[in-house]
Amino acid sequence: MAYSANNKQMRTNSHSNLKILAFDVFGTVVDWHSGIAREVRALRPTVDGEMFALAWRAGYQPAMRRVMSGELGWTLIDDLHRLILEQILGQFGIADLSESEKHHLNKAWHRLDPWPDVVSGLTRLKSRFTICTLSNGNIGLLADMAKHGGLPWDCILSAEVFRAYKPDPATYLGVAKVFDVTPAEVMLVAAHQDDLAAARACGLQTAYVERSAEFGAAHPKDISPHKDNNWHAQDFLSLADQLGC
Amino acid sequence: MAYSANNKQMRTNSHSNLKILAFDVFGTVVDWHSGIAREVRALRPTVDGEMFALAWRAGYQPAMRRVMSGELGWTLIDDLHRLILEQILGQFGIADLSESEKHHLNKAWHRLDPWPDVVSGLTRLKSRFTICTLSNGNIGLLADMAKHGGLPWDCILSAEVFRAYKPDPATYLGVAKVFDVTPAEVMLVAAHQDDLAAARACGLQTAYVERSAEFGAAHPKDISPHKDNNWHAQDFLSLADQLGC
Repeated sequence: MAYSANNKQMRTNSHSNLKILAFDVFGTVVDWHSGIAREVRALRPTVDGEMFALAWRAGYQPAMRRVMSGELGWTLIDDLHRLILEQILGQFGIADLSESEKHHLNKAWHRLDPWPDVVSGLTRLKSRFTICTLSNGNIGLLADMAKHGGLPWDCILSAEVFRAYKPDPATYLGVAKVFDVTPAEVMLVAAHQDDLAAARACGLQTAYVERSAEFGAAHPKDISPHKDNNWHAQDFLSLADQLGC
Repeated sequence: MAYSANNKQMRTNSHSNLKILAFDVFGTVVDWHSGIAREVRALRPTVDGEMFALAWRAGYQPAMRRVMSGELGWTLIDDLHRLILEQILGQFGIADLSESEKHHLNKAWHRLDPWPDVVSGLTRLKSRFTICTLSNGNIGLLADMAKHGGLPWDCILSAEVFRAYKPDPATYLGVAKVFDVTPAEVMLVAAHQDDLAAARACGLQTAYVERSAEFGAAHPKDISPHKDNNWHAQDFLSLADQLGC
């Protein structure tokens, strides 16, 4: 089914068999860019917080690849974040941070704020579906973040549970297995087309959420719809509208 | 410190360093005995529901031992429940249950009701601590149960996350590791002294909760305090009172 101008159903308009909504977290649920920028500036006001946030985040995929290739053993994202942090401190001129400052800054990922629509959107979606995270973040990080932001998850699922990072099929299929449902009864909700494509390849339904300011309001990202997603939503409230919640 | 008549502090009265409350679930949070009895009677009114519930539950420890000894590979509790169910159907004269009836009955463990004090008690405790499950039940079972009973967990932790059942130290210490805290900053809350003793051996704090009707109101169990627990509470509301929530 073709994409319609009012952001309604795309590939299919059926959600009668949908039971579980699994949410990507960094970028989709929380605004990592301004959160990290704010926290590093609070420690060292001279640092370009926005560039720092981008650099830290940019180290994420390469670090996960080192684990997935076997170069590193299984590693929690907290530890990968710390590894990357050590690599970038020098280039931002803050290699003098104390151990406790570095520890505090590394935990900034636990204190990221949700986008403004998230709590009310999730609350509506939860009334009809089981809502869970599906993030490469570790369980403790996601639980702290939920407590910090009041995110009403039914369940926190993570790469840590499946001992594999997205886009490994073990993660997407793992959600279906945990809840004893078919992959088609699960929908991944994410602001990243590559994540959604990997989920779709495993038979999950997919919903794209626009987060044009993920990399900062000054650098809006491409939020074009992709025809293979089942849903395309401006935010979680729009997704709740579309799913009849 | 000696046990005091008003059920207040026992081993120590300090909880200033306490961050995480991890709850045993079957018996402590939910009433498995009357829930299972009710569900089997709904399927076959002639069955002695209370005896059936006791028999099903009695198969639980031996089944877990078969996994822990290596005789069976890692197995979710849903599958162990089904294994035990098949063993006891005959003795209760209901070997004629259809596959869909057996599947439905096996999922009765997902639909157990909390004790009456649980939701309000957890809500109060959650205001001050991170509250999570620490159960041998699988994640999907615990998430369904939370949704069914409105249990406001911050996080669902399970044997499934640690690939070990309680009383394996990997489970108790795993909670501390997930939240990056010391074992002494975690407290296990349970209605079973053996579970609490194993947690204490790992350095966790412990709170015993009286659930005298766990095996049926007609067969009250021993709820004597044990001097080594940090707290002894009649129910979750009493625990919240004692912890100043």
